[in-house]
Order: sequence, then structure tokens, then C-alpha cells
Amino acid sequence: MNASPLPRPVPARVIDGKAVAAARTQALAQRVAGFRERTGVVPGLAVVLVGDDAASAIYVRRKARQCEAVGMRSVQHVLPGATTQAELLALVERLNRDPDVHGILVQLPLPRPLDEAAILAAVDPDKDVDGFHTMNAGRLALGRPALVPCTPLGCLLLLRELGVALRGKRALVVGRSVIVGRPMAQLLLMEDCTVTIAHRHSQDLAMLCREADILIVAVGIPGLIRGDWIRPGAVVIDVGINRVDDGAGGSRIVGDVAYDEAAHVAGAITPVPGGVGPMTIACLLENTLAAAAAIEGGAAA
Amino acid sequence: MNASPLPRPVPARVIDGKAVAAARTQALAQRVAGFRERTGVVPGLAVVLVGDDAASAIYVRRKARQCEAVGMRSVQHVLPGATTQAELLALVERLNRDPDVHGILVQLPLPRPLDEAAILAAVDPDKDVDGFHTMNAGRLALGRPALVPCTPLGCLLLLRELGVALRGKRALVVGRSVIVGRPMAQLLLMEDCTVTIAHRHSQDLAMLCREADILIVAVGIPGLIRGDWIRPGAVVIDVGINRVDDGAGGSRIVGDVAYDEAAHVAGAITPVPGGVGPMTIACLLENTLAAAAAIEGGAAA
Repeated sequence: MNASPLPRPVPARVIDGKAVAAARTQALAQRVAGFRERTGVVPGLAVVLVGDDAASAIYVRRKARQCEAVGMRSVQHVLPGATTQAELLALVERLNRDPDVHGILVQLPLPRPLDEAAILAAVDPDKDVDGFHTMNAGRLALGRPALVPCTPLGCLLLLRELGVALRGKRALVVGRSVIVGRPMAQLLLMEDCTVTIAHRHSQDLAMLCREADILIVAVGIPGLIRGDWIRPGAVVIDVGINRVDDGAGGSRIVGDVAYDEAAHVAGAITPVPGGVGPMTIACLLENTLAAAAAIEGGAAA
Repeated sequence: MNASPLPRPVPARVIDGKAVAAARTQALAQRVAGFRERTGVVPGLAVVLVGDDAASAIYVRRKARQCEAVGMRSVQHVLPGATTQAELLALVERLNRDPDVHGILVQLPLPRPLDEAAILAAVDPDKDVDGFHTMNAGRLALGRPALVPCTPLGCLLLLRELGVALRGKRALVVGRSVIVGRPMAQLLLMEDCTVTIAHRHSQDLAMLCREADILIVAVGIPGLIRGDWIRPGAVVIDVGINRVDDGAGGSRIVGDVAYDEAAHVAGAITPVPGGVGPMTIACLLENTLAAAAAIEGGAAA
């Protein structure tokens, strides 16, 4: 009578990034409408594309379409691949001064020999909706209001969507890229998590993972994180997008977490695809409204 | 014959910050001499003091004296307490433009109603030897060359002085202030440590400490960290400077770590006073030479 049965593994809650992104985008459209009503201003996003990279062109079109779908203005500047640094800088400076533009996105990568760092540094930090400017990295590092890179912001919004209390929780960020890992750690610190950052030189990654209530992985190694590395009940956010052989002559997309294993241990987990990915453009649009609100002095809410 | 005796507690190596600072300052004087010889430029530090706070006046004089002792130029600007924001900004902008000034330090706190944030934001980031500018916080957060706040830089130099390999080690930073904890975490990440940041909302701080090979504490709570929280052999850097009752009608200075307990467990430990404190001005001088080298295009080494 004393012996209680071993708890059966409960399948993890699957965090549906597509649904969350759709719901947020719908809510954003209402916020944009309210903002336009209050201020008479239409938030505007300028997207700059240099050259004819096919994937970049698809991204840019998708961003423009979603921008307009929520009631914001979208302007695309498509420049030839032979554009010079001076020409591109001149465009960025014109967009910096343009009162109808609240967000500026320079689609990366830029073709050689353009100097990406110099171009990104030229963008007005208050219009830097990608959150890549050093001033925004600094504001975030100092715990101040900042435009935050879209991928880690999307991860945070997924965590918030779960309704899990973050304060005091142990969070592990695996990967320390400037676009995901580092800003992610800052965001979790602002949420009062105890934050650990691990990377290629970390020892005993399995043990580090087992300590974490919240596990964010962004390293680009398919299936690196195994199921038995995960603390039962932990929330797992998988930022990895890796194309692997599907064993049948084709390919498929997988994350950095061994999903089938992890889904029996985690409390909640993002699938790949369909987890973090769909949040990125939603966050770009949220950043654009936030930039417009800061510039125009109106509330974004 | 098989039973080996229990290891006896070995007293920790005491990290003598005063001696390290003195040695570094001596080495710095030689580097300054070399820099002057190569470039014909004397590195210059401008210190701005507003009002008549006695402690601030002492700090400023000490900084000026040490600056000159290593062969750098020191200029002090002492302004009356009634100085306006516009007057102070005008001075900062003049110093930004002054080619003889490579480092600018505005002594804090500024008297009310001066706006500290606005003044610090006005300092040229390349002359920001306190490392307080948002651009420098951003550069550090992005893992790029930056002027780094003096106290965490001093902690790093003490760690380096020990000759302990940092790569892959677990480091815990207790405290997340923008002046110490946050930049300290960034520096340890750049050294390839697995870095955890803990703070007032962290749960089971004792356990977190026990995981750490390197423990940096900067919270301002006397004796918070107990001896049995420390992993045997760990390196302990105590940034706390707390004045407490000495039980005999006077007071004494103690750190955030219960030193007498910790000194029997740690592998190495900084005393308070005499640990991190003496490193601060030494780092200010190193930052000034680094700023001069970056501005003049000469190597600081």
C-alpha cells in the first residue's frame, strides 16, 4: 500500500509558435490601429535589400506583406549587387532622417565587399528594429529599454505565453552568439532568472542542462541536447534550424534538441519547425510599433 | 595501509591586490614611457569634479597623483556645486574635442539636480575610461574591444595574475549591478568560462556557490557568503566593501564573504581591504593608456 507507482512520463506540452505568432500578430493589428487613431501616424518599416539573393528576396517580401497586414506602412529599397558602400550609407542616412520611417531593416548578408558592421552602425539606434546596433546591445546589457533582436525576443514571448513564472528560475542558454545567446541571457536576467551561459568550451553540458528549469538552445548542432539531459518538467526552447538527411534521399529540418526524446521529459517544448521560427517576423513588427511609439512619443500598448 | 588520511584544510592563497596593483602600475609606467617614445604623445586624463564632497575630492587627488606617477598627464576640473547641466555638458564637449585629453572621468555622484545619465552619455565613448557609456557596455556585450569598468577589470586582472586557466571553468557572479556584476559576467564569458549570474531573486545561493570554480561576489551584504558554500579549492574574489561595527565601539571594513571561514576552503581569496580595492585606480590608468593608444593609433603594449 505504501508503494506508489512510478510516475509515467507525461508528453510535453508542445509550444505552437505558429499559433502564438498568429495570435500576437492579430493583437498587434489592433494595437497599430489604436496607435494610428491616437497619433495620426502610420508606423513605417523600411527594408533594404542589396543584390539578388533569392532567399533574402523571399524574406523581404514576406516581411513587407506581414507589415501591411497589421496596418503598418512598408517600403522596400532593392539595390543592385554592385551598390557601393557610400551609396548604401547615403540611403541609410536618408531613411534615418525620413519622418515616415520608424524602423529600418538592412537584410543580411550584404554582398561583398560591403562592410556590414559599418552599415549597421550607421542605422539610427532608435530605428534599429533588428536590435543589432551597439547602442541597443548596450541598453539591453544595462537593463534599460532597448530594441532587442527578434529571435531572442520571440523566445521570451513564447515563455511568457506559457504563463510560467520566470523569477528565480534557473535558465541555461546554450550558445553565446551576439544575435541569440547573449541577448537571450540578458532578457532572462531582466526576468529575474538565475542565468547561465554555456558554449563550446563548457564542460559537462549534460549536467548543466539537468540544472535548468528553462533551457534555450541556439548552437546549430542537430540533436545536440539529448532527452536524458533535460530536467523533468523543464521548458525547452529550441532555436536551432538544421537541415539534415532524411534517410530517404531528401532532407528535413530539425532543431538542436533531440525532439522525440525530449518530448517525453520536458514540461513544454518548441517543435522545429513551427516553434521559434514563426515568432521572428512577429517580433520585427512589434519592434517597429515600439520604435514608432518611442519616436512619436505615444504609447505602443 | 589503504586508508589515506583525510586531507587537511589548506589555508587559501591570499590574493594581495595591493602588491598586484603596485606591480602593474610599475609595469604600466614602462608601457607609458614606451608609448611616449613611439608616438611623441603623453596620455592625458581629465577628471571632472563638481561640488565639494570631501570623499570625492580625496579620490580625485589620488587618481591625479597616480596618473602623474606613471608618466601620464592629469588635468583636474573642479567646478562649483551650483554648476548647471549646460555648463557641465559644455566642459565635457570641450574635453571630447581636446586632443591632449585621452580619458575623461566625471567623478560620481554628481550633486542634484544634475542629470548623471545625460552627462555620462555625452562623454566620447573612446575617451570613456570609466567604461560607463552605453556604447562601451554594448561593445562588451557583443564581445568586441571596449573600455571596461575598472572594478570588474581589476577582478579579471587578479584572476589572470593567479595563472589559473579560466577556459571551461564554472564562474558564478553574485550581483548584477551595471558597474560590477554585469560587465564581470561578460568578461568571464570572453575568457570562455561557463558563467552564471545570481542576484536577490536567485534560489539556493549556497548550492549555486558550491558549483563554482570561480566565485565573484559584489552585493554589499557583509559576510553573505559562508565558508561551507564554497567549493574546496575555488578562487574567491570579494568585491564587497562594507563598514560594520567592530564590537569595540568602532568600525571596520569587511567584504561580502565570511573571510575567516572561506579562507580554510577556498584555493585563493581576496582579503577586504587589500584585495580588489587597490586594483581600481590601476585599471583606470590602464584604460587611459588603452584609450590613448586607440585614439593615437599606437599599440598600448
